[in-house]
Amino acid sequence: MTTLPKVGSFQFHIESYVCDFTGKATLPVIVSFIFQAATAHANERGFGYDDIRKDNIAWVVSRISIEMDEYPEHDENITVETWIENVTRFFTQRCIRFINKDNRVIGYARTIWAAIDIVTRRPVDIPAWRPDLAEYVVPDKECPIEKLAKIPPVNGVEPDMGYTVRYSDIDINQHMNSIKYIEHTLNTFDLKLFQEKFIRKYEIVYLVEGVFGDKLKLYKQAVSDDEYLIDTKKGEESICRNRIIWVHGTRVHSARMNGQMTEIKK
Amino acid sequence: MTTLPKVGSFQFHIESYVCDFTGKATLPVIVSFIFQAATAHANERGFGYDDIRKDNIAWVVSRISIEMDEYPEHDENITVETWIENVTRFFTQRCIRFINKDNRVIGYARTIWAAIDIVTRRPVDIPAWRPDLAEYVVPDKECPIEKLAKIPPVNGVEPDMGYTVRYSDIDINQHMNSIKYIEHTLNTFDLKLFQEKFIRKYEIVYLVEGVFGDKLKLYKQAVSDDEYLIDTKKGEESICRNRIIWVHGTRVHSARMNGQMTEIKK
Repeated sequence: MTTLPKVGSFQFHIESYVCDFTGKATLPVIVSFIFQAATAHANERGFGYDDIRKDNIAWVVSRISIEMDEYPEHDENITVETWIENVTRFFTQRCIRFINKDNRVIGYARTIWAAIDIVTRRPVDIPAWRPDLAEYVVPDKECPIEKLAKIPPVNGVEPDMGYTVRYSDIDINQHMNSIKYIEHTLNTFDLKLFQEKFIRKYEIVYLVEGVFGDKLKLYKQAVSDDEYLIDTKKGEESICRNRIIWVHGTRVHSARMNGQMTEIKK
Repeated sequence: MTTLPKVGSFQFHIESYVCDFTGKATLPVIVSFIFQAATAHANERGFGYDDIRKDNIAWVVSRISIEMDEYPEHDENITVETWIENVTRFFTQRCIRFINKDNRVIGYARTIWAAIDIVTRRPVDIPAWRPDLAEYVVPDKECPIEKLAKIPPVNGVEPDMGYTVRYSDIDINQHMNSIKYIEHTLNTFDLKLFQEKFIRKYEIVYLVEGVFGDKLKLYKQAVSDDEYLIDTKKGEESICRNRIIWVHGTRVHSARMNGQMTEIKK
């Protein structure tokens, strides 16, 4: 074990090209910060992509749940803290806390990762493979996000026009970039919604990896005025499922009192 | 006039989320660096967007021509130098030089900007409006890129499936993001091409601003194995025209000898 703290802390600067028309960093960018922080945290501690490639294993993100009180603005810095909350047989849970320029917590995320055998594409028994990961677990640091629930399939609605997976969707591993699913999901919404509301909570479950040329359709269902389910499908098969909860305005003020986000608890 | 040097120099770090599957920064990202450097250069010298908004005037990019010997890789730094080459009645030419981590010049760009009256949408007589801009002109710094030629329209070909302008395409000014036209243009090419070749030269002429909901079609014509014209149209009207020249491999070695790029001169 290294002498590094169990919680990693990484800073990002909000460049203009990661902002949308509201002048704030977009959700896909915030999620990309999660991936970068997770990658750096794991690399520094000896279980990053490069370290585990020796074992023919790769980390694959399975679920993300993120709740933001507000989004950082152009030219601000944001600090992204990340730590491992637990390690079970086939999954690790990694938590994230977002801290703004005024040292105020503005959001949390919980992510679930599997370790996949690159050859067989099957999940690896994590504690058997890397018992040392247990030493990095921080079980008691607060991450006030509900446990990730199942996102139901969407049925009986007409699909959005969808998209074909193209060059700009493909990541360094030649799969569909995990961030791009989120970008395409957001593109099913009218600009007006982004003017009036912001994305308070977002969940995604990754089911199948998209590849270049896949023709994907998005099935969107309004659960309420502010909650939507979006199912990304290739033919009949779900590629990823998304849940979005919008809130009026640009921020939630009282959210972090007592570390609870009571106003969206159901 | 400020005491700042006429040539501005800005550094960028290549984050993983700005790389494509080849592990290098993409062309749209390199162009975004041009915009950021141009914006910072103008801001520092008193003629940036915020300064000129007082006069109800905005800078609008009209043309870009960029030639790269190679693209910077993930985790590298790149230095972007920019300066004004000349100011004519309705346009300024701004040059860019890209320098890699080994202090080697890896590319150049030339961009043409108009100053537009925000209310009338008409071009402003720049020397009459801001005679002080002449003091920033660097007429003799080398920028070995051919003068920007007209990009012809594309006729007689079937359009690509095209795209609708959506949330992720819209910039902070609520217009189609100038970078996104380039991303969609590149998306007309097969992944195989990006594996075998790289974009040696790229030109774009912006003609009309796209807005949310526009349904755009891309008309692509192969001039040769390595040269393509792509016309982005809304109905019969050209929104922007692009020319791409590909070269085999990942870099051109001898390009900058004598500051000439003889191998693609025609």
